[in-house]
Amino acid sequence: MDIAKLRTSLLSATKAAIRSSVKEDNLIIQCVNSMQETEKCINMMSKRLREWYGLSLPEVEHSVEDHETLINTVLTKSREELLKQYHITEPMGPELSNKDVTTINELAATIQQLFALKQKQEEYLNVSMKSYYPELEKTAGSIVGAKLLAKAGSIKHLMEMPSSTIQILGAEKALFRHLTRSSRPPKHGIILQHQKVAGAKEKGKAARQLANAIAKAVKIDYFKKEKA
Amino acid sequence: MDIAKLRTSLLSATKAAIRSSVKEDNLIIQCVNSMQETEKCINMMSKRLREWYGLSLPEVEHSVEDHETLINTVLTKSREELLKQYHITEPMGPELSNKDVTTINELAATIQQLFALKQKQEEYLNVSMKSYYPELEKTAGSIVGAKLLAKAGSIKHLMEMPSSTIQILGAEKALFRHLTRSSRPPKHGIILQHQKVAGAKEKGKAARQLANAIAKAVKIDYFKKEKA
Repeated sequence: MDIAKLRTSLLSATKAAIRSSVKEDNLIIQCVNSMQETEKCINMMSKRLREWYGLSLPEVEHSVEDHETLINTVLTKSREELLKQYHITEPMGPELSNKDVTTINELAATIQQLFALKQKQEEYLNVSMKSYYPELEKTAGSIVGAKLLAKAGSIKHLMEMPSSTIQILGAEKALFRHLTRSSRPPKHGIILQHQKVAGAKEKGKAARQLANAIAKAVKIDYFKKEKA
Repeated sequence: MDIAKLRTSLLSATKAAIRSSVKEDNLIIQCVNSMQETEKCINMMSKRLREWYGLSLPEVEHSVEDHETLINTVLTKSREELLKQYHITEPMGPELSNKDVTTINELAATIQQLFALKQKQEEYLNVSMKSYYPELEKTAGSIVGAKLLAKAGSIKHLMEMPSSTIQILGAEKALFRHLTRSSRPPKHGIILQHQKVAGAKEKGKAARQLANAIAKAVKIDYFKKEKA
């Protein structure tokens, strides 16, 4: 009898522990991973749209470089309008049947929805990072900050990392190539996506400085939470 | 002057040749490839949804195996309803804020749209295959037929293939493993997805028979077109 009681109480304690182990960083990590997957899907499907649509209007497909612009063009303009707009007298692709045009448009519309999803996820990350990890958001930006968080696995792990590790988070392949085959060590990983590093002349130096700032910021965010 | 005339006439002849080189098989191939990519996206994003949603309701995520059913559950039922339905008194996941629930639902809704896109693409393939390659559609089915077409590159290439090649289309990896490292040769490629092969006891035999029938059917379709 007592053992049964002990069992239930232990079970409920475990369940409570699991329940309380889900923190805001878990949710942010799921969202940023999902965003990166959405991006992958957008790229894959946009490439397909280009190839498919290019069968009928290769000239237009070729001259519109941005995926989103092309999708809008596909969805809003008819073949005749485009032929006029691009001054094409002899198009290199045939006119497609209504059925084909509809199917291509359905693909384009779905990619548009994926773009919308990505934007919503970015907004969510923005809001979440600002409210939970304000210092990290300020120094690294919400997207780069969230990606670092996802790579580290949790805010605690990220907090424990030295800035030199943060600097090359996401460049694991290059790091291990360096360690095993004595190629040059990587200078930056995910933080290369930050404007301060991408726009800098000396990228290695900028990456080191930014990583230092991020390491500090994460510690501030983490211990403020702990204290509260 | 004459050279300029020649040039324009050659240019327009080339453009016309390119224009008329786009045939129905090209469109079918684009669509079936797109369908397979849509499937990939669905799988990737569904897995993410499971992981994300599972933070809050791991019990429900675990007991609903089908992706589409889970998406419907996520979108239509509230946490309270689900707790009641699955008789969960002590949930292992925390209750999420409205903001989090909305973000997860947006992902689920997008996956639902991907499912809808996939279905429309399947319908398109059904109609197209039936009207352009009726024999192939009859023997292999529209999806398997279209996949074979995509692997071969065109109806002409598929027509020229011996049935033994058709049998292992899509099993190239296994074939080359066989040729270089003397493992056993593959018995079936894409056609394993056909019910007649997947459901057969002797899969190799069924695959051979189906490949024979497909090889014949493709030739009929191709030469009927040629004659017309």
